[in-house]
Amino acid sequence: MIVLFTDFGLEGPYLGQVQAVLHQQAPGIPVINLFSDLAPFEIQGAASLLPAYAACFPPATVFLCVVDPGVGGTRPGVVVKADGRWYVGPNEGLFAMLARQSRQLECWQLAEPDGASASFHGRDVFAPVAAKLARGGKVPGVSVPVGCLEQADWPDELFRVVYIDRFGNAITGVCASTVAPGMLLEVNGQAVQRARTFSDVSPGEAFWYANANGLVEFAVNRGRADEVLGLKAGTVFRLKDG
Amino acid sequence: MIVLFTDFGLEGPYLGQVQAVLHQQAPGIPVINLFSDLAPFEIQGAASLLPAYAACFPPATVFLCVVDPGVGGTRPGVVVKADGRWYVGPNEGLFAMLARQSRQLECWQLAEPDGASASFHGRDVFAPVAAKLARGGKVPGVSVPVGCLEQADWPDELFRVVYIDRFGNAITGVCASTVAPGMLLEVNGQAVQRARTFSDVSPGEAFWYANANGLVEFAVNRGRADEVLGLKAGTVFRLKDG
Amino acid sequence: MIVLFTDFGLEGPYLGQVQAVLHQQAPGIPVINLFSDLAPFEIQGAASLLPAYAACFPPATVFLCVVDPGVGGTRPGVVVKADGRWYVGPNEGLFAMLARQSRQLECWQLAEPDGASASFHGRDVFAPVAAKLARGGKVPGVSVPVGCLEQADWPDELFRVVYIDRFGNAITGVCASTVAPGMLLEVNGQAVQRARTFSDVSPGEAFWYANANGLVEFAVNRGRADEVLGLKAGTVFRLKDG
Repeated sequence: MIVLFTDFGLEGPYLGQVQAVLHQQAPGIPVINLFSDLAPFEIQGAASLLPAYAACFPPATVFLCVVDPGVGGTRPGVVVKADGRWYVGPNEGLFAMLARQSRQLECWQLAEPDGASASFHGRDVFAPVAAKLARGGKVPGVSVPVGCLEQADWPDELFRVVYIDRFGNAITGVCASTVAPGMLLEVNGQAVQRARTFSDVSPGEAFWYANANGLVEFAVNRGRADEVLGLKAGTVFRLKDG
Repeated sequence: MIVLFTDFGLEGPYLGQVQAVLHQQAPGIPVINLFSDLAPFEIQGAASLLPAYAACFPPATVFLCVVDPGVGGTRPGVVVKADGRWYVGPNEGLFAMLARQSRQLECWQLAEPDGASASFHGRDVFAPVAAKLARGGKVPGVSVPVGCLEQADWPDELFRVVYIDRFGNAITGVCASTVAPGMLLEVNGQAVQRARTFSDVSPGEAFWYANANGLVEFAVNRGRADEVLGLKAGTVFRLKDG
Repeated sequence: MIVLFTDFGLEGPYLGQVQAVLHQQAPGIPVINLFSDLAPFEIQGAASLLPAYAACFPPATVFLCVVDPGVGGTRPGVVVKADGRWYVGPNEGLFAMLARQSRQLECWQLAEPDGASASFHGRDVFAPVAAKLARGGKVPGVSVPVGCLEQADWPDELFRVVYIDRFGNAITGVCASTVAPGMLLEVNGQAVQRARTFSDVSPGEAFWYANANGLVEFAVNRGRADEVLGLKAGTVFRLKDG
């Protein structure tokens, strides 16, 4: 299975062009759009979602990951093998949190193929590599130390709203398992309590919970957390004693 | 064929995560996104669209239907077999109109599987059942009388705008065949006449017609009915003598 | 491979209904959504994109192309074979630029099948033809001279913004190869210089470049060209000496 994790948008020609390459070069292998509307260029947020959302997928899944403000520049692409799954994309930090959370990690650096466009490496560089890996082919790159992976100095948990979904729920970059029992989360001056799920609080009430992928998510039962709590992508929050 | 009929949104990770489960558990079976942007939590509107849009599909098609404001609560999931097609989803009224319009109807109640998340039953409860049915497996539930199906006391026809499409056309919950010849429809104080299709009226003119799935739809030739007639999801209308 | 090039929108039931017909009538053949959000009814813009975006696809690809303000009227559908690829859709000008740029061109006129809806020819007329062609079937139409193809009197290059993508980049209807070296492009009173790609200019700086499909595209490094240059679909521009 090939999984797309990008900021390409659902609109326009980009997803379709990448899918066309994949269907031609890896015929019969399912292609799943996991995230197509990651915030453009926001590498740190995307990096904090990747391990949580990749964990559901079976070994040997190939993730094509593109959030790439530096496209056309000199940064090389990479292939990462982490806990049995493959990841392909630009080496700009997108794999930083994945690397930190993985038990087994290998890394390869990609050469840019002749004839690649200067602006659409997702289609011209990374999709052919993803197709090859999905077919069981050899990694088309040079093995490099995992220290080559752009890691930046980001904290382990990102106390920031990363993605607002269609319902107004706010997905964050914090693993819910790292929040001690009884702690509140304070956002925009409001203290928000934990609940198990929507139906455990009153209609209109805000809460936070461990979402279906284990991340802290702000929500409102039968309402919109973005409106009730004044949240948007980038809103920061912090732990607060209960 | 598995057909998705949900309010998950096209955005974000939800559709992709459901599709990943389906591709793993029902390999090779096509998955179609029929509606992914039903109005969040608006069960009655979705229920009025379902029979009209399901009728195009062949027998044995499996519909995964999720509009589920009560997720995580105690309401059980159901499997419905109606006129040879399968439907899987929460028992909150979404199948009420389908049941009323079907000649043959059977119903099963689902148990919640161990390990299901509290907030994403589409992925954890309903998708595995849909995959099993699509593979031709036995219904994984307990047969129950069709009276168990949540039916509410909704009228047969819903005189309300249910969905505004990209072109500004307004799909309603009324079967066009129930409107007597010569009747007008009155909406926002305006009397709207019936036409066969767009090209039968002048550019800019509003009309209603039996859309390609047999429902009453307000439209404007080369224009937007939502703007011309002031329509949005939820706008009510009524029959008026011509 | 079947490729969809439409103004149906990603939302709502239309794409799914067309895909359902294709999966039933051409089982196992991949279906790619290339463009689903072309500007409604803007045939000339869509016609100027089609050859550039079709050129990436292999011979025998079938394009289902629908931008169809006149649906339900008397205009016939057509099948076009151009340089080894197939195109199916309404004969309203959508194939005009393709015809002009192709070396080999054939054309057939379609009859409307019995039972087709008056408003959804994409599903009822064109999808069955696309499926048949993708299966290698005989063209279900009458051969006609290529002069029957609606060509209008459009210029070869369309100096207009045709599509704004998710990042605010503005795709135009001009082949970049037709712009002489050293020429500037003037838009909204601003002279814009050519660059190779994003990373070749300073952050925040506007430029134009040959996009990954060879068209002139306005862009801003790590910013939005639509905001910086005041662009929207329909904005005109012109050549200017450098």
